[in-house]
Amino acid sequence: MTRPSPRVGRLADGRALYLFDDHGQHPEPGPVPVDSRRLPPPPPRNQLRWDPLAHEWVVIAPHRLGRGRSQDGGCALCPSTPEAPTEIPATSYDVAVFDNRFPALHGAAEEPVPACGGIGTRVPTAGRCEVISFSSEHRISPADLPPHRMSTVIEAWIHRTRAINALPDVVQVVCFENRGAQIGATQSHPHGQIYGYPFEPARLRRMRTAVRRDRERGLGCLHCRILAAEERGGDRLVLRTERWTAFVPFAARWPYEVHLYPRRHVTELSDLDGPERRELARVYQSLLRRFERVDTAPLPYMALWIQALARGDEGLTHLHAQMFSDHFSQAVAKKLAAGELGAGTHVSEAVPEEAARRLRAADDADR
Amino acid sequence: MTRPSPRVGRLADGRALYLFDDHGQHPEPGPVPVDSRRLPPPPPRNQLRWDPLAHEWVVIAPHRLGRGRSQDGGCALCPSTPEAPTEIPATSYDVAVFDNRFPALHGAAEEPVPACGGIGTRVPTAGRCEVISFSSEHRISPADLPPHRMSTVIEAWIHRTRAINALPDVVQVVCFENRGAQIGATQSHPHGQIYGYPFEPARLRRMRTAVRRDRERGLGCLHCRILAAEERGGDRLVLRTERWTAFVPFAARWPYEVHLYPRRHVTELSDLDGPERRELARVYQSLLRRFERVDTAPLPYMALWIQALARGDEGLTHLHAQMFSDHFSQAVAKKLAAGELGAGTHVSEAVPEEAARRLRAADDADR
Repeated sequence: MTRPSPRVGRLADGRALYLFDDHGQHPEPGPVPVDSRRLPPPPPRNQLRWDPLAHEWVVIAPHRLGRGRSQDGGCALCPSTPEAPTEIPATSYDVAVFDNRFPALHGAAEEPVPACGGIGTRVPTAGRCEVISFSSEHRISPADLPPHRMSTVIEAWIHRTRAINALPDVVQVVCFENRGAQIGATQSHPHGQIYGYPFEPARLRRMRTAVRRDRERGLGCLHCRILAAEERGGDRLVLRTERWTAFVPFAARWPYEVHLYPRRHVTELSDLDGPERRELARVYQSLLRRFERVDTAPLPYMALWIQALARGDEGLTHLHAQMFSDHFSQAVAKKLAAGELGAGTHVSEAVPEEAARRLRAADDADR
Repeated sequence: MTRPSPRVGRLADGRALYLFDDHGQHPEPGPVPVDSRRLPPPPPRNQLRWDPLAHEWVVIAPHRLGRGRSQDGGCALCPSTPEAPTEIPATSYDVAVFDNRFPALHGAAEEPVPACGGIGTRVPTAGRCEVISFSSEHRISPADLPPHRMSTVIEAWIHRTRAINALPDVVQVVCFENRGAQIGATQSHPHGQIYGYPFEPARLRRMRTAVRRDRERGLGCLHCRILAAEERGGDRLVLRTERWTAFVPFAARWPYEVHLYPRRHVTELSDLDGPERRELARVYQSLLRRFERVDTAPLPYMALWIQALARGDEGLTHLHAQMFSDHFSQAVAKKLAAGELGAGTHVSEAVPEEAARRLRAADDADR
């Protein structure tokens, strides 16, 4: 499908800004306004370090520790006013995407340098970190965006995934969302993030390895088999529409965890056809509302879209979203300790079938 | 080395209790006092569920959610008084170990049951969860135990590791410690835990796979090579004695992270000779004190001992402890969000060499 392009601009320090307009066009279209702030130059490059024991990359990003404090109390994602210019030099907008001012990953790839006596490897980070703001409106929750806005968010995810995948150093793009001060979201403005990792993130790589192993055994797509089993079983289903199915996974690690799959095997958001996209806007928000309504006050949540590798995916990926809350209730969080963080084994106090029942009951249809 | 055995008793609900006495003997030796409480029967078995996608076991343990609330405000690890009987039916003790009343893992192995359409597997948990109390004294910190007590703790770790490894269903024993209310330790009494996992915990399995890969390539023990590189490099060293070396790992995930190795390649705590054990008591506490003194108030920490598999280790394990704090300071914790918990890639705001410098400077010798 051909889609309208965003309006493109630059922030004062050279970072890119993309404005995505609802229905593909702005009521008063025009160039992106100029960012008149004086900004310090971008922070120094971070470092990727290879952990030879855990067999994974770690991003060492010291400058990010100061990121919350630099906003002077104002919201960086609200539209700019003459008195308070923000990251978005516009008096209103629909969906805005821009390069993170404090990126974990940025820059172009360089030669890795052997380190730690030749056992480790360090390299300046490459990759991309973008912020996506879902609305001009500071107080609206992502669950409550109007449906046409959610569609614009989906179009922005698709556009940015494609564009970042095209960068030579990017291996996998992950669109994600961290919602709730309890889990460290530094902004309450409705927003998400889009990371272009210059490597395959460790957990995603492990999932892909499991899928490959199954395929090599002639078992077909593991995701498709899980999806079929959950649809057949039904006791962990949260919702099912013509084109989408959401369920609590059999071995859920979190108090509330939902995996959302298109029922058709596709590998990335851009593969979705028009009806799938339209249904997704509705289904995604229905799930977000369930996280908000399953307790007396909204639970914090994390959500990520798992899409194909930029290159060489071999059709192993089955597009899906993983959404979860580490909170049993507003007041009680799952604490991760040495067993989870050191040994890597989760002990979950939630029964997946029971969590599914509660999320089904938090249906938003009658509100 | 032959070591004195603990005094062994039973709690009111049948759980085992072991009392380890300093210097191997109690000033007033005798049988373990009787636990006169009326206790409800042990909680139901938990469930192990195999996640076919992440390729790891998850423990589903719903009854553990209530564990904090059942103590009626009193400390379960303090010695018993006639008015307030606790988990330890003695008026004083040195080191006590007992079966966790709310175990994540308990019972004997059973046949796994196919689930989730044959893709997942569920099985009642086997394994063992023990609690180890380091002192009668509620307010003392593990860092401040007298050296002979730390030696008794080490002997207790060794005794219980051996005994739990001998159980037919146990695959790997992990002795660990979670210290600090911020990280969810439900008890401030100085204590740790000893888990006998009926499977190899996922992160430890990955580490072992990396070690095996290196050995198969003829590179020798990866742990030994890392240790030698850190000793040679020096910029991440925290302390080094005749028999032990502690350093911040090259690709540390945490604000403060220390790996502690015996300089001799051994696979479990029981392999340590007398001088190594004596030095360990001193070195381990020196590290704990650094976590307490590196900021203005003690940082919470997690620590775990990584030892050989119960069976079939193939000499791949190199005994070591991993100790870490997820706090930069008392006030600022590293928050894990979708990038870490969903994609599995850590972004760390701490520079390992800088953390090592601070931990070296938090030397306790002059206090």
